[in-house]
Amino acid sequence: MSRIELYDTTLRDGMQGEGMSLSAQEKLRVAHRLDELGIDLIEAGFPSSNPKELELFDLLARERLTHANVAAFGMTRRRGLSAEEDPGLRVLADCFAPVCTLVGKTWGLHLEKVVRVDREENLRMISESVAFLAARGKRVIYDAEHFFDGFADDAVYALRCLRAAAEAGADTVTCCDTNGGTLPEQIAAAMTVVASELGSGGVQLGIHCHDDAGCAVAGTLAAVRAGATHVQGTMNGYGERCGNANLVTVIPNLQLKLGHQCLRESQLRSLTATAHFLDELLNFTPDPDQPYVGRNAFAHKGGMHVAGVNVDPTTFEHVDPEVVGNSRELLISELSGRGTVQARAREVGIELDEEDAARVTERVKQLEHLGYHFEAADGSFELLLRRETGDYEPLFRLESWRAIVEKRADGRVETEATIKIWVDGERYVRTAEGNGPVNALDRALRDALAEIHPHLRDIDLVNFKVRILDETKGTGAVTRVLLDSSDGDELWGAIGVSENIIEASWEALVDSLEYGMSVSRRGQPGAPAGAEPSA
Amino acid sequence: MSRIELYDTTLRDGMQGEGMSLSAQEKLRVAHRLDELGIDLIEAGFPSSNPKELELFDLLARERLTHANVAAFGMTRRRGLSAEEDPGLRVLADCFAPVCTLVGKTWGLHLEKVVRVDREENLRMISESVAFLAARGKRVIYDAEHFFDGFADDAVYALRCLRAAAEAGADTVTCCDTNGGTLPEQIAAAMTVVASELGSGGVQLGIHCHDDAGCAVAGTLAAVRAGATHVQGTMNGYGERCGNANLVTVIPNLQLKLGHQCLRESQLRSLTATAHFLDELLNFTPDPDQPYVGRNAFAHKGGMHVAGVNVDPTTFEHVDPEVVGNSRELLISELSGRGTVQARAREVGIELDEEDAARVTERVKQLEHLGYHFEAADGSFELLLRRETGDYEPLFRLESWRAIVEKRADGRVETEATIKIWVDGERYVRTAEGNGPVNALDRALRDALAEIHPHLRDIDLVNFKVRILDETKGTGAVTRVLLDSSDGDELWGAIGVSENIIEASWEALVDSLEYGMSVSRRGQPGAPAGAEPSA
Repeated sequence: MSRIELYDTTLRDGMQGEGMSLSAQEKLRVAHRLDELGIDLIEAGFPSSNPKELELFDLLARERLTHANVAAFGMTRRRGLSAEEDPGLRVLADCFAPVCTLVGKTWGLHLEKVVRVDREENLRMISESVAFLAARGKRVIYDAEHFFDGFADDAVYALRCLRAAAEAGADTVTCCDTNGGTLPEQIAAAMTVVASELGSGGVQLGIHCHDDAGCAVAGTLAAVRAGATHVQGTMNGYGERCGNANLVTVIPNLQLKLGHQCLRESQLRSLTATAHFLDELLNFTPDPDQPYVGRNAFAHKGGMHVAGVNVDPTTFEHVDPEVVGNSRELLISELSGRGTVQARAREVGIELDEEDAARVTERVKQLEHLGYHFEAADGSFELLLRRETGDYEPLFRLESWRAIVEKRADGRVETEATIKIWVDGERYVRTAEGNGPVNALDRALRDALAEIHPHLRDIDLVNFKVRILDETKGTGAVTRVLLDSSDGDELWGAIGVSENIIEASWEALVDSLEYGMSVSRRGQPGAPAGAEPSA
Repeated sequence: MSRIELYDTTLRDGMQGEGMSLSAQEKLRVAHRLDELGIDLIEAGFPSSNPKELELFDLLARERLTHANVAAFGMTRRRGLSAEEDPGLRVLADCFAPVCTLVGKTWGLHLEKVVRVDREENLRMISESVAFLAARGKRVIYDAEHFFDGFADDAVYALRCLRAAAEAGADTVTCCDTNGGTLPEQIAAAMTVVASELGSGGVQLGIHCHDDAGCAVAGTLAAVRAGATHVQGTMNGYGERCGNANLVTVIPNLQLKLGHQCLRESQLRSLTATAHFLDELLNFTPDPDQPYVGRNAFAHKGGMHVAGVNVDPTTFEHVDPEVVGNSRELLISELSGRGTVQARAREVGIELDEEDAARVTERVKQLEHLGYHFEAADGSFELLLRRETGDYEPLFRLESWRAIVEKRADGRVETEATIKIWVDGERYVRTAEGNGPVNALDRALRDALAEIHPHLRDIDLVNFKVRILDETKGTGAVTRVLLDSSDGDELWGAIGVSENIIEASWEALVDSLEYGMSVSRRGQPGAPAGAEPSA
């Protein structure tokens, strides 16, 4: 099958999404990761829309990428100016980037109601702008905005816009579903016409989808099937409204299911890590359900699933998770059997004989009945295994703790916690304040323990989730606390369950720290011993 | 276009997703909401897989749904038993549900490697099981598990499985993409063959997709295009791994873009509220980028977008957001506009002039910025209105409160709270124990107030939800507490927000009791005064 050119617009269109914020230096890191992944073209933005963009282009100009080319983004010339006079086009022409992507109008509705430009003038704007940049040695990609809406409204004019770009020297014309509402079958029908009208002219066809109808990935595949060989999208589907086409899903679909050549095998194996890197950099929690790269994407719960996967993974897996750098998760749940527990134990280097496995499984069932849930609490699960098999040494022995929250007449809230613990025969009493009772307990405990275990200072609590299990019991309900922690290398989850929210939090807190210390004591930071990132 | 039958499996397949947990009572509430939305068939689970499922079927049997039918789920008979002898099939036959959905094998790989059943025996298992239930007056839907993998492997055998079900009396045969890896074009090709092979026999064709390739919605639409008229999926795409086909996206695509008849217009307008209700009940944050119903789905950022939308919404919107009950505003809050605030105030008997309305709207915006969210906190919203308009009298004046949680060496956890308050010039000091700090505060406060306001004893806290708003800040994040209370006649919601979880809970607790008392003091139990159930 044909080679597909991958065009990533995370740094431009992706940045329109809610909560997207990256410094120029961070964008540079993204560009390098995309380059390593094997992306062909990295759209970096408009080189002068603001000082941050200018700084990024300055940085990129000095940087050496292995494989990717940088694309600068801009618009067709303004009405009434020549291309030479247009300041935006001059910036693009002078920019170091070898590729320029120009966006222009294709839809009469927008020409009439939004920009108020005559249809013939719009065609001149397209062809003169493209010709200007092509004459200056740029590879020009023409992005036809609202192409599919324009095509549905007036196919002849929409095609004239594409042809104007192609004839003026655009090397690629991209059909954009800017409003995101076009369904795959409509995209396929339009692209088939485009391919038959323009295909013979040697111009490459591209596709750019948005996910407003939940079909951006499928729409992209439909366009490729109809002849597109240039695919635009963003990492993790970042983008305004419902997001852009998600390259993290598109790429394995193209390569593993449709046989197109996109990335080298080793690059495809870095897909999961790259997708999570982007989320971490943007401070988003990776979507656990994301196709191919999500933590749950290859998670197996039921006993029959687990048994089937053990016999032959293709029974329950649509692709081999390792091909995209993901791994199989065997979830510990109410439905799980002894085999799952043994397999999970083996992952963390513990061999359970039949008797141990039966006892641990029984214990897991009891705990799940009480409200524990080990799917997202890999740290607590490993500690449970070690406790049950005798391979466990507590960090400390608790004498007591106390948390006091006080609201005073002036409205101020004060929180303090005191812990009394024993470590190696010595008693430690520590008191700390905090912005909440759990925070205060955390501070007091670390204050005591960090003298003996300085590594504890490196552990951050990165995620704190509270769920009331039987909400209908009001404040008498059981509380489940999930705590994710990280030491910079790894991320692990811990769980606590109690009628008392502070006790549940304490339990998760102690597991978090004990697990973190057990990793460090084994001297295997980054080792695979059950400490795979839970995210 | 044809009528499409909507089959929701949120309560069965959806519950396989990570973090999905609902009590039988909560499932009943979901069933009612799905019924009101206009779902045709609600799959409720297997009537005897555990006590919770049994309780649900007992509850459902006594319930009256307006439109939907309940479907019970089970498997084809076990190998070596007759259908009559199979305990699972007997449970289905005896169950009140008029519809039974039977899942069975279609794929040789599974027969050989997972269940080790002979191909001919599998066909007998399908036809005998279907016939047994059909003879007992059930409408039988046959779900062909792994159909598309089976079809790719051995189309003749896969079709024989469908035919066995249809000929034995199944009214619908559903082709399931159980592993979720089949692309829409492959689904369309297989369904076209199925339709030509089985279509003339009068059996209805169904589709059941999973999202492992990010194409579940598009795959569902492709199947409908090829002849399926029965569509299975879950609300918000809940489900194991990457989730099931998302009915919240499928339904508007079918109805608004492909012209199929699914819901009444008024029902479609409740889509956003229904999707968010499910997320709230499950304590998930609604996905802001979800197609059609997400907070960002119709959010416009750039100035040109906003200007364009003002001239003609179709320039930048693929559908009218109101048609699915969403809105164009960035914040989906019902209260964001001044007119809405006035209307809501009028509902509870408060007339706001322009100045008051502007001030309240401003205050709501400030509070929403801090993390408040009044959609589910009608009680707190009414108190806010009364405070802003001077029509408010506090139940008490707080001097101070203090909550102490103590864990002792023997593992016991003790909790006590002390409150010091003033009512009518008199000082009350009360201490109470509880199973958690909020419970203890609640007891102490009521102990003091109930002497003056005996009605307080009738107020129950029925629902307590905790959400950490910025999870990535660990234990230093802001906590939002939602508390639903009831006095037997009414249900109302109250909210508290603070870095300190105890303070946030206290705030919600006080609002809950004050609102409850204001209802009772107005002597309008059961009156509509803003106290509609928040669910």
